[in-house]
Amino acid sequence: MASMMLDEILETPAAIERLLRDGMGAIREAGAAIRAARPRFAVIVARGTSDHAGTYARYVIETRLGIPAGLAAPSVVTIYGARLEWRDVLLLAISQSGRSPDLVAVADAARQGGALTMTVTNEPGSPLAVASDLVVPCLAGLERSVAATKTYVAELVSTAAVLGEAAGDRVILESLPMLPDAAASAVAAGQAWLEGPASPVQAFADAETALVVGRGFNYATALEIALKLKEAALLFADGYSTADLLHGPIAVAHRDTQTLAFRAGGSAGAAVDEVIDRLIGTDSPTWVVGDPPDIAARPVSTCRVGSGVPEVLSPIPLVLPGQLLAESAARARGLDPDSPPGLAKVTRTV
Amino acid sequence: MASMMLDEILETPAAIERLLRDGMGAIREAGAAIRAARPRFAVIVARGTSDHAGTYARYVIETRLGIPAGLAAPSVVTIYGARLEWRDVLLLAISQSGRSPDLVAVADAARQGGALTMTVTNEPGSPLAVASDLVVPCLAGLERSVAATKTYVAELVSTAAVLGEAAGDRVILESLPMLPDAAASAVAAGQAWLEGPASPVQAFADAETALVVGRGFNYATALEIALKLKEAALLFADGYSTADLLHGPIAVAHRDTQTLAFRAGGSAGAAVDEVIDRLIGTDSPTWVVGDPPDIAARPVSTCRVGSGVPEVLSPIPLVLPGQLLAESAARARGLDPDSPPGLAKVTRTV
Repeated sequence: MASMMLDEILETPAAIERLLRDGMGAIREAGAAIRAARPRFAVIVARGTSDHAGTYARYVIETRLGIPAGLAAPSVVTIYGARLEWRDVLLLAISQSGRSPDLVAVADAARQGGALTMTVTNEPGSPLAVASDLVVPCLAGLERSVAATKTYVAELVSTAAVLGEAAGDRVILESLPMLPDAAASAVAAGQAWLEGPASPVQAFADAETALVVGRGFNYATALEIALKLKEAALLFADGYSTADLLHGPIAVAHRDTQTLAFRAGGSAGAAVDEVIDRLIGTDSPTWVVGDPPDIAARPVSTCRVGSGVPEVLSPIPLVLPGQLLAESAARARGLDPDSPPGLAKVTRTV
Repeated sequence: MASMMLDEILETPAAIERLLRDGMGAIREAGAAIRAARPRFAVIVARGTSDHAGTYARYVIETRLGIPAGLAAPSVVTIYGARLEWRDVLLLAISQSGRSPDLVAVADAARQGGALTMTVTNEPGSPLAVASDLVVPCLAGLERSVAATKTYVAELVSTAAVLGEAAGDRVILESLPMLPDAAASAVAAGQAWLEGPASPVQAFADAETALVVGRGFNYATALEIALKLKEAALLFADGYSTADLLHGPIAVAHRDTQTLAFRAGGSAGAAVDEVIDRLIGTDSPTWVVGDPPDIAARPVSTCRVGSGVPEVLSPIPLVLPGQLLAESAARARGLDPDSPPGLAKVTRTV
């Protein structure tokens, strides 16, 4: 039985195409406004899946705009009532629904304090968008599954595009048109992997726990797929940067724990390969999504994805096989991936 | 059989006393230098346990100094070679050993770029300390267990003290002398809890997985005890802010998952209580460390700790029963908590 989650993953290439066709006006305008404001620091505020798009955004901001960026702790504003010095700050809010009160409170405080505030959202009429100076729409269409998939990818594309515009970054801007095809290829590669002879589906369905790792731009991919495995497949999965993994958590890499590594081509690749080597030395079965060199140590199997786009955009194709795995593992466990227990599509926290 | 980890937890009150007696000169000097520099943004760089002291530091910086703070992504410098705009930035590095090359690289880049750099470390002669403008020693003495405990608490105390000095925050500065007794009381309360009729030790020793939650200042406590359970007890534990938990991960709160909530008195308490209520509605047995009101929904049991110090300092006593639980759960599982598989005392990542 297919799920809405699967349908929505399959809609992703078309959603990216629509965004690049209809959203670039708003994206260029917002990019120009950031360029004009010349912010000196960036603060990103988001929750859940969107927080992982925010993790991606911080790497793009720091490497492309060359200013320090950090992820906000909303309770500083909502619980402790702190008044921060917001001048010269770019406040980037990311939210599918634009409705969580804590995000609105932080965006309000930042705008009143002198920050330039921008919201990336699938709901341009939402309270969060209204509280912001700039709005970048994701144009992903209605998402019905509680587990966000196509809106996550649309948030990544919108964020990369607007920051690429702000930085005048030719690598990003010239590669955007490749993304619909790259996403379609990644979906096809993911489906072939899941249905093929070295499929990870049963291993993840049978696992007690999972580690999901990546580095640099794809640290976000690891965090997001760990959350998808938790939400959709109820598999206790934890996401780490490969460096953080070595500072403690690798202790739990044992034979009932499956490990999934996201390994893009590019600068972070060698650091990920080294940790894949370490993981293959543990009892934890290790699976790879991405573009490892042929001489890399042998994982159980590899889903080969992503060699067509530069590393800065690689989280867009790479996440797709991970989303498909979470959906398939959920169904293999007899679960409905669209309706995780205890979760609603819009979560309101303060 | 006792462990070095247990010995070192028990040494914590004396270590705090020593730090407040012998370290305040360096702390006042560093605090004055921060005050004079008037930084507009703070970036914190750390790994593993020290990264959780960094998570605590960001809340203290934002609520006390009133400037935005974020946790660094070292790969931006070490892998992608980005040159950031570091002027007006306070770069706070936290490391027990001061020897991880990625932290040294970030501190070097920040200092060369014009940041004021400060290192909080137990090794004031380490490469990281040498690469910094200001050094705050933790004076925790030699730590032999791989699982850091007393050095974590010493990092919290040093960080709170130096930021309290920088902000001229009377609440922090006037409460510092209470910390040795508060820590001793928390150790005693923790030991009584673990040995008492409603002890959590066997439940955590038998668990497949654990969720550890807190909010605000004690989000750091949740992250740190989740890591301790992983490292020492090889229990697959995951730490969350109570708000983030509701945005997805609460889906995995089921009966084989133990949940541990850190609930300080103060502003964040009500938000944590609400989530404890939600958790008690799941099948996951829920345990509380802290100072909940008597009318709160009933957890399995509560270790009552922390009413003597203001919330900003509550992570110092609250973490201690969590550390003791990780050590006891490790031994109940037949493990040696001092020697986690695959880990060394000093981790060098790039």
